[in-house]
Amino acid sequence: MTKSHRFLLGAALAAAASGCATAPAPKFVGMPGPTARPFSAAVVANGIIYLSGQIGIDTATGKPMEGGIGPQTKAALEIIKELLGQQGASMSDVVHCTVMLADIQEWGAMNTVYMTYFPTNPPTRSAFGTSGLALGARVEIECQAVAPAKK
Amino acid sequence: MTKSHRFLLGAALAAAASGCATAPAPKFVGMPGPTARPFSAAVVANGIIYLSGQIGIDTATGKPMEGGIGPQTKAALEIIKELLGQQGASMSDVVHCTVMLADIQEWGAMNTVYMTYFPTNPPTRSAFGTSGLALGARVEIECQAVAPAKK
Amino acid sequence: MTKSHRFLLGAALAAAASGCATAPAPKFVGMPGPTARPFSAAVVANGIIYLSGQIGIDTATGKPMEGGIGPQTKAALEIIKELLGQQGASMSDVVHCTVMLADIQEWGAMNTVYMTYFPTNPPTRSAFGTSGLALGARVEIECQAVAPAKK
Repeated sequence: MTKSHRFLLGAALAAAASGCATAPAPKFVGMPGPTARPFSAAVVANGIIYLSGQIGIDTATGKPMEGGIGPQTKAALEIIKELLGQQGASMSDVVHCTVMLADIQEWGAMNTVYMTYFPTNPPTRSAFGTSGLALGARVEIECQAVAPAKK
Repeated sequence: MTKSHRFLLGAALAAAASGCATAPAPKFVGMPGPTARPFSAAVVANGIIYLSGQIGIDTATGKPMEGGIGPQTKAALEIIKELLGQQGASMSDVVHCTVMLADIQEWGAMNTVYMTYFPTNPPTRSAFGTSGLALGARVEIECQAVAPAKK
Repeated sequence: MTKSHRFLLGAALAAAASGCATAPAPKFVGMPGPTARPFSAAVVANGIIYLSGQIGIDTATGKPMEGGIGPQTKAALEIIKELLGQQGASMSDVVHCTVMLADIQEWGAMNTVYMTYFPTNPPTRSAFGTSGLALGARVEIECQAVAPAKK
């Protein structure tokens, strides 16, 4: 074996090792709009897209959608879909969600809308009633998805 | 160095790179039973087993176990143990749990049962009181575990 | 190609494959102090530092800090900072937090302190009101961070 062979094999081994051991730095995606928020919209780290909990904001008013749990569930999931799309992912990449409800009695109405977004292979999930959500929302939904493989 | 050497080294480097960059597709494990549920029982993705929040269901009645927080904590953790076992993992692989209580006053009674499932190296955890859980349960427990290495 | 060449290339490929497929065992970090707790302070697994939900304990009394939401938010985040530092990480490595409040009305006061710990690239986050937290705390904060690459 020549010196150059040893060098190249060494390089292959080092690349193999570092490719696994050295995680790339997280990618932070800010919230849209002029106001500084205390959270990012998305962070991609370690193969996972972490999203902030989303409430079903009406972008025209900046407040939760009128009409209660149904429209707010739909609006929250549309924001999530949009944020995932920006990272090259879709709803079918979601592996886990947490559903925070203003009232657990609205669990069924939330589910009716929620299930249309995950027709097959729904993510794992927890859901619970809270004593209150930001902006008086009826529901806040947080999801994690697998990040698409780097090309 | 011959052409074949260069080819093989190139293949080694490509395998090393793709082995890290290309995450396998998530594996979804459905809930048992005939009814479609709005969540999977488990999703294995990116080296982690994500489980849905579990309540301590009595399989004979389909309702939370009678006897309150103690029996329901035990039943929920038994379901979690079973689901992990199906993926080749055990309670000692659990890295994080979230414990959602109907009443934070039952934190101590939950802990008494919970700790017997994690006698050493317990997972990290958060626990809080909710304003209500599905099916009127006293407790819902959600866990993540490391997936066993592929053989 | 000689036998030794084939052996070394095989070894390079095996190292590349196993380096990705074989996740190291999780590392559990216990809570400080003499009392056994039902949770670890931190678990490092699969490239992520999982932390338990932290309440802003006054180490002198073992109870939540006096002064309410502001001092308790600060104390909880100081504990989180310390735990991350023990693993070679810092607040800028945090990718996701969950903020559990005794009262959602204290969301703004919590944020005022919280944002000083994440001046740029804040983690993703969910926040909600609970019906109660351990030890009567006003806030519990749980974070996940990316683990530093192994040297």
